[in-house]
Amino acid sequence: MATRSPAEDLELVSKNRCFDGFVFKYQHISRVLGGVTMRFNIFLPLSAIGPSGQNGAIKVPVLYFLSGLTCTEDNMITKSGAIKYLSEEGIALVTPDTSPRNAGVEGEDDSWDLGTGAGFYIDAVTDKWARHYKMYSYIAEELPALINNNFNVGGHGALVLAMRNPGRYRSVSAFAPICNPCECELGQKAFAAYLGNDKSLWEKYDACCLVKEYKGPNLNILLDQGSDDQFLKQGSLLPDHFMAAAENNKECVKIDNHLHPSFDHSYWFVQTFMENHIRFHAKYLKN
Amino acid sequence: MATRSPAEDLELVSKNRCFDGFVFKYQHISRVLGGVTMRFNIFLPLSAIGPSGQNGAIKVPVLYFLSGLTCTEDNMITKSGAIKYLSEEGIALVTPDTSPRNAGVEGEDDSWDLGTGAGFYIDAVTDKWARHYKMYSYIAEELPALINNNFNVGGHGALVLAMRNPGRYRSVSAFAPICNPCECELGQKAFAAYLGNDKSLWEKYDACCLVKEYKGPNLNILLDQGSDDQFLKQGSLLPDHFMAAAENNKECVKIDNHLHPSFDHSYWFVQTFMENHIRFHAKYLKN
Repeated sequence: MATRSPAEDLELVSKNRCFDGFVFKYQHISRVLGGVTMRFNIFLPLSAIGPSGQNGAIKVPVLYFLSGLTCTEDNMITKSGAIKYLSEEGIALVTPDTSPRNAGVEGEDDSWDLGTGAGFYIDAVTDKWARHYKMYSYIAEELPALINNNFNVGGHGALVLAMRNPGRYRSVSAFAPICNPCECELGQKAFAAYLGNDKSLWEKYDACCLVKEYKGPNLNILLDQGSDDQFLKQGSLLPDHFMAAAENNKECVKIDNHLHPSFDHSYWFVQTFMENHIRFHAKYLKN
Repeated sequence: MATRSPAEDLELVSKNRCFDGFVFKYQHISRVLGGVTMRFNIFLPLSAIGPSGQNGAIKVPVLYFLSGLTCTEDNMITKSGAIKYLSEEGIALVTPDTSPRNAGVEGEDDSWDLGTGAGFYIDAVTDKWARHYKMYSYIAEELPALINNNFNVGGHGALVLAMRNPGRYRSVSAFAPICNPCECELGQKAFAAYLGNDKSLWEKYDACCLVKEYKGPNLNILLDQGSDDQFLKQGSLLPDHFMAAAENNKECVKIDNHLHPSFDHSYWFVQTFMENHIRFHAKYLKN
């Protein structure tokens, strides 16, 4: 089977061998995000590339990692140590950016928790943000289509995306997520700015609201949280709200929840438990 | 046995749990580097800290990782995935910076291969650089003394340091090192600036010169190199010179040399082979 060559709308920025595969960085102009140039990294195991780089490639499962506030497409893939395990399992990884950049929205760079680096994976509807801040549609539609059309990957990970798209994702896991944005200051600030005052729209991006109503193929969620996480302590994450909400939907959602003493919110925490997450996804993606 | 509390001349910048230990970042004012503030990271396994963080700690072996040009104290420890293996082996890791910063030397920030980020681990003797650029003495003397006095580590890596200090280091390994700086443009530029025109002084910082003359406890060197390394291709690394020079000193030096097809000079390469390096050092450090 011949490998498709990435289309002209994908521009290769860099390519580096790592374990039994290559990490590629691409950029492309996003239609959904109003013409902003977006970057992503993709790790492809050698099996998805083929021995000669051209021929004999096979389709491999693909994992999407959605980074948190302030991150770029690079944080996870460079700091998590994930590639060893992805390489062993023969799974591809896509790490998108967390927001548009240089979109030209007034004040987009002023605040760490709004605008650049803080897209919250939602489709903004307010006049100021609506043109470029459509990260939900970018992650749910445009990017997977681009990936599926250009690389030897098949199949398609985050709490909101998985629950709003039953059957689309086989597994979902999270490190220290904001579980209930409607109920914390951090989420309220962003939702008010991007979505306006319609609280029913807020609920469509809130994992606690969605988990109660999810119907579809059984969803297994792995959730790791550090006990010394500064954002947990300030009440921004609220994993207890998520666990309580999920209790009401036990027939469809099963959560494997771990609280780790003395770990914080950093990539030191993420790298410690990354192997568990890759193995967890491999179990679902490879069956 | 009580853990010593770090002395007042060490200022704690951050502390993060990672695997079975903590990554600490400290800063201190370096006397050897003429009063410049230097930063380093240290990973300590829980066993070196003690269950309560205060008591029951034991001395653990320590590994020093000397990063290459342009790096800071952060590159290796954040990107290499080493902590998993260090944690398993119960070994501490120290990652120093690669040069003084904000030393006030004219033009120190102008060039990627001279000055800031490019200390080359040598003691400069030229008027311009001599006051602050004493990285050889910093790494060989000041920093280990500081580490040994403040943490529960015992014992003490890089080609030049190991060969000039027989018996001080139990093992040494390198990723894509500049093996023969006297013979490549990159090394010649730095050596002329830091050391002046006395070629006999240059030879004291050249692994090819040192390996021929090393006498001391048997030195086992693990050396990994990528075949697609841009610095290899431009003739800056010259590992073949090092292998040839070591052939003349087989009784004292044994080199385990690996050339890896399609790997380059990046941390993608380093993380791929990091486990081998940690296991290699563990073998010597723990015996």
